Amino acid sequence: MRTLYHFPLQPQSRKMRLLLGEKHVECDFVIERPWERREAFLRINPASETPVLVEDGGLAIIGDYAIEEYLEEICPEPAMIGRTIQERAEIRRLVQWFDGKFQREVTQHTLDEKITKRLTGRGQPDSTAIRAGKVNVAVHLAYITWLIDRRNWLGGAELSLADLAAAAHLSAIDYVGDVPWDDHPTAKEWYARLKSRPSFRPLLADHLPGTQPPPHYADLDF
Amino acid sequence: MRTLYHFPLQPQSRKMRLLLGEKHVECDFVIERPWERREAFLRINPASETPVLVEDGGLAIIGDYAIEEYLEEICPEPAMIGRTIQERAEIRRLVQWFDGKFQREVTQHTLDEKITKRLTGRGQPDSTAIRAGKVNVAVHLAYITWLIDRRNWLGGAELSLADLAAAAHLSAIDYVGDVPWDDHPTAKEWYARLKSRPSFRPLLADHLPGTQPPPHYADLDF
Repeated sequence: MRTLYHFPLQPQSRKMRLLLGEKHVECDFVIERPWERREAFLRINPASETPVLVEDGGLAIIGDYAIEEYLEEICPEPAMIGRTIQERAEIRRLVQWFDGKFQREVTQHTLDEKITKRLTGRGQPDSTAIRAGKVNVAVHLAYITWLIDRRNWLGGAELSLADLAAAAHLSAIDYVGDVPWDDHPTAKEWYARLKSRPSFRPLLADHLPGTQPPPHYADLDF
Repeated sequence: MRTLYHFPLQPQSRKMRLLLGEKHVECDFVIERPWERREAFLRINPASETPVLVEDGGLAIIGDYAIEEYLEEICPEPAMIGRTIQERAEIRRLVQWFDGKFQREVTQHTLDEKITKRLTGRGQPDSTAIRAGKVNVAVHLAYITWLIDRRNWLGGAELSLADLAAAAHLSAIDYVGDVPWDDHPTAKEWYARLKSRPSFRPLLADHLPGTQPPPHYADLDF
């Protein structure tokens, strides 16, 4: 059986778990705490970063960029990176939007301050950063609203990796309680559709010792 | 004619210029200063980020992730993201290494402190960050040495996008004079091979007003 090495609250790991679920790819899951620099994991990935997918034969696919393109190639159905050249460009644009822009403007300010700093012993959360994250997340929810007013899913008519990337980040931020869903009903409706998919269930069951997600985190009718 | 909107010292823009050159794709180039949030550019890319490739018919391919995969699809020769599934995974791993890990550990500490902060009016360079960047770049040059001791190019036997991503970052750092080439002769030999390719020439001619790259920057025999 193939194995995904992941860290549950890392958005890039969550994106891979959602993608494996949507493609119905069977997989074992191993939780890796990359900052511990476990020797056996470093031998697989010298960058000591999750996610890493290891195939039965030992082939290691390292990093979310390599894994998502690999899975699309070996399991093309359902297509998650589009069917036309235009769709693929639009979906990849949005994946980079969330893993780049959203990561810098929200995830780093929110999740990294509230959770990652404590886990990795890098000091106290910076309340200025957390406030900036709260301001910024509203801008991204407004952009999701703008897209969903025009399309069924973020990347177009079909569910795609763009939705999974966005939901991976937002679900991690939601775990620390910083998503103002009620101010953004269209984005909330889109997220509720994703949250009710079977691929999402394992994420809603995640629990990081010493933390408590808000009650609505795992509630499908939030 | 297609047009690439780019910022000359941004590594992701440089990677695209190198890729267009290696694939012999004809292109016009427009320098964009994304932080100015030019209205016509925002209409193309609401993220106001370079690089963006606009085709004759108006199709906009936004972001380096979308553009590199698009160019590989429309101009498959020479292949720059590998010919086998293993090669593709390895090349994408290394592209993410440089655009992720190297970017956070070196580029942000060096180029962003010395150049981007001044351009965007975000204050004075942080000398602690610049020192950290100098320590970190040596670790990455050692990793390049380790790879080149085992392979002809970073991603395998053939030149690939992995080399272009690495050289895009290193050339931008080299512009501000922070690459200790003489301590890393194997990495230097690899970089000299890249630097002498026709695709590299336009990068060596870049000049940002108010800055002066070190004399060796554009010297092929450095």
